[in-house]
Amino acid sequence: MTMKEGEAPFVGDIVLEGSRIARIGPQLGEEADEVIHAEGMLAMPGLVNAHQHSPMSLLRGFSDDLKLMDWLNRKMLPAEARMTPEDVYWGAKLAMSEMIRSGTTAFADMYIHMNEIALAVQEAGMRASLTRGLVFLENDGGRRMREALDLAEKWHGGAEGRITVMIGPHAPYTCPPEPLREAIGLAERLKLPIHVHLAETKEEVAVLREKYGRTPTEYLHETGLFERVHVLLAHAVHLSERDIGLLAGMRGGIAHNPVSNLKLGCGIAPVSSMTGQGLVVGLGTDGAGSATTLDLFEEIKAAAWLQKLGREDPTALPALEALRMVTIGGAELLGIADKVGTLEPGKQADLLLVDLNKPHLRPVHSLESLLAYSANGADVDTTIVAGKVLMRNRRLLTLDEDEILRQASVRAARLVAGL
Amino acid sequence: MTMKEGEAPFVGDIVLEGSRIARIGPQLGEEADEVIHAEGMLAMPGLVNAHQHSPMSLLRGFSDDLKLMDWLNRKMLPAEARMTPEDVYWGAKLAMSEMIRSGTTAFADMYIHMNEIALAVQEAGMRASLTRGLVFLENDGGRRMREALDLAEKWHGGAEGRITVMIGPHAPYTCPPEPLREAIGLAERLKLPIHVHLAETKEEVAVLREKYGRTPTEYLHETGLFERVHVLLAHAVHLSERDIGLLAGMRGGIAHNPVSNLKLGCGIAPVSSMTGQGLVVGLGTDGAGSATTLDLFEEIKAAAWLQKLGREDPTALPALEALRMVTIGGAELLGIADKVGTLEPGKQADLLLVDLNKPHLRPVHSLESLLAYSANGADVDTTIVAGKVLMRNRRLLTLDEDEILRQASVRAARLVAGL
Repeated sequence: MTMKEGEAPFVGDIVLEGSRIARIGPQLGEEADEVIHAEGMLAMPGLVNAHQHSPMSLLRGFSDDLKLMDWLNRKMLPAEARMTPEDVYWGAKLAMSEMIRSGTTAFADMYIHMNEIALAVQEAGMRASLTRGLVFLENDGGRRMREALDLAEKWHGGAEGRITVMIGPHAPYTCPPEPLREAIGLAERLKLPIHVHLAETKEEVAVLREKYGRTPTEYLHETGLFERVHVLLAHAVHLSERDIGLLAGMRGGIAHNPVSNLKLGCGIAPVSSMTGQGLVVGLGTDGAGSATTLDLFEEIKAAAWLQKLGREDPTALPALEALRMVTIGGAELLGIADKVGTLEPGKQADLLLVDLNKPHLRPVHSLESLLAYSANGADVDTTIVAGKVLMRNRRLLTLDEDEILRQASVRAARLVAGL
Repeated sequence: MTMKEGEAPFVGDIVLEGSRIARIGPQLGEEADEVIHAEGMLAMPGLVNAHQHSPMSLLRGFSDDLKLMDWLNRKMLPAEARMTPEDVYWGAKLAMSEMIRSGTTAFADMYIHMNEIALAVQEAGMRASLTRGLVFLENDGGRRMREALDLAEKWHGGAEGRITVMIGPHAPYTCPPEPLREAIGLAERLKLPIHVHLAETKEEVAVLREKYGRTPTEYLHETGLFERVHVLLAHAVHLSERDIGLLAGMRGGIAHNPVSNLKLGCGIAPVSSMTGQGLVVGLGTDGAGSATTLDLFEEIKAAAWLQKLGREDPTALPALEALRMVTIGGAELLGIADKVGTLEPGKQADLLLVDLNKPHLRPVHSLESLLAYSANGADVDTTIVAGKVLMRNRRLLTLDEDEILRQASVRAARLVAGL
């Protein structure tokens, strides 16, 4: 399943050369140094997690079923304040273990200690867009900005081109106008995209209304952001039709995080309206601290379900559209759609083999229905990034999983002690 | 995790004798004929699927993303009309393969050719509550009623007590008052519960309003149903507070089917209001024709998510409550809570081992969060019903999976040919 527009699934072969897809088509039958037999499996582009905070995997399940402000202030912030660079490194590796296992090949990550995450990405062999989150409500905004610049200089284009960097003003409610403009200026100067949270909660809309007399989207729009750089907007739950209109023609698009929005009771993002206006939508998990799991197959389901529920229309957001969001859609958000997101010659070989030899994936009336509504991450047999096999037959090949689980348990216990 | 009220998870042993749990506690260290070592695994009661149409597994993914009436009239009904008794038998076996693999040990099934399903249940070793669906809009209502009686006589208490039977007037909109009363009378006479669909769609509420000037719940209530027998109500999406009040004190309860309700755009059932009124709620998948998958871990997530979304409150339907719904809640709906639904000495040994040695199930801050929000069916390592191991190390022991997948493919192709 190539995910190229209008191209139906077919039975065939994929020939890789180095990090790229060389040829693809029905039974090419070519000689090769290494052959992966995939009878009864389906090849598809790697999944792209368009919004993440990977080290929060250490806080998975730590504070579920709490009010948003209790979740944040009593649990997440105090635990995160204890995170050392080493914790971030191991947390990212725990997240990547889960991501590779569930078919994610690329992800957009916003957090702290990003150099450690970059190192973990390099070692794991994944593809990532890394962002230092910039909160400007406290005094050390300057230090954060320098860390963002440092990350860009050290890692943009790093790990054989698998790592790219974005500039990350955290959110309208945590970025006053002056530092927000500075961050945008930095992105423009470095020719890097912006990754920013937008309108996740009703409360954020109320705060911005009171502070600036604007919606969060209007507040960003007035900076000229959407004309100036490529932008990855995370969440965008509370957007009016007028807000959506302000985004028309933007480069980049929206990372929809349906599971996190559901679990925190935030609401239903107007995804069908966005795509109706020509906006690009990808899917993200948000951090495991809210979503609990990083399995994008859950987001595919939740995205489709939410539009059907919200519009009282089972035809809203059909299976293939959800699958395109999580592949080529995410690649467009990360600014790497020229390299990945579809299976076609010349592109990077970022792909999955999904094992269909299972009762929940039979009979095959519709591959896209099975993938969108019945598959889960455990059905991924093989994960390949840039031509390198990261998982085969469900065994991780670049990560020491036992050591990661051990480190995660020990470090997580320290982070939450007494909270 | 015993799911007994107020009992926390602990490290320990479970001793089985025959079909029952003999003893359970911290490190009993007893001698036994057979020992299953389960380091790093979690034991919990088997999951109960409280509403299903198992042979629809043959139509999985056949008609997703369609309007409800197109789904029903253009796809499902014509395909179902072609189903032979043998198709039903193999469809039920396909469904049971998926159910055992994802930790379901008991299910409530309403369909046609129920004797074939009973045979399949007997062979698979599962536990089931079987119901002949009674639609009285056509002429052969009498034949259906005789089939229901026949099923009860042949199979109630069958398969070493693993099979029970309910009487199944299909739904208020398909059962006029006279045959509805007859069906209830039959249930009362045979001392069997009633399994009935209720208020799945807005359209049903409008139809009943026009036809009888009643809500679907009022229509059922007026028959005296809720005073007379144990009732399993499937769906109950569109219930007013007054409707919920009418159900107070009922024996049985509500099978909530969140995935099906989402996929068909039906709405959010008022589950928190129901439980707030003391009603018992269990979880069901509905048929795979609508839900696509029969993995109850998806229903656990969806149930919790929907209440949080609908009430804009992340504390609504917390993890442990969802887990109790899918175990002891379902057991109560099926009328077998004296036998299964919790792990305790004297009860039937219906239980699962969930493998926690995986990155998405670490670290362990909260077992119930991990189980409710991160686990999926593929994490179930071992499934046991009535002391018999149906799956171990993910290998099915009572079903010939290759033959089932083969039969499913061939039969499914015939059912949908030309549709």
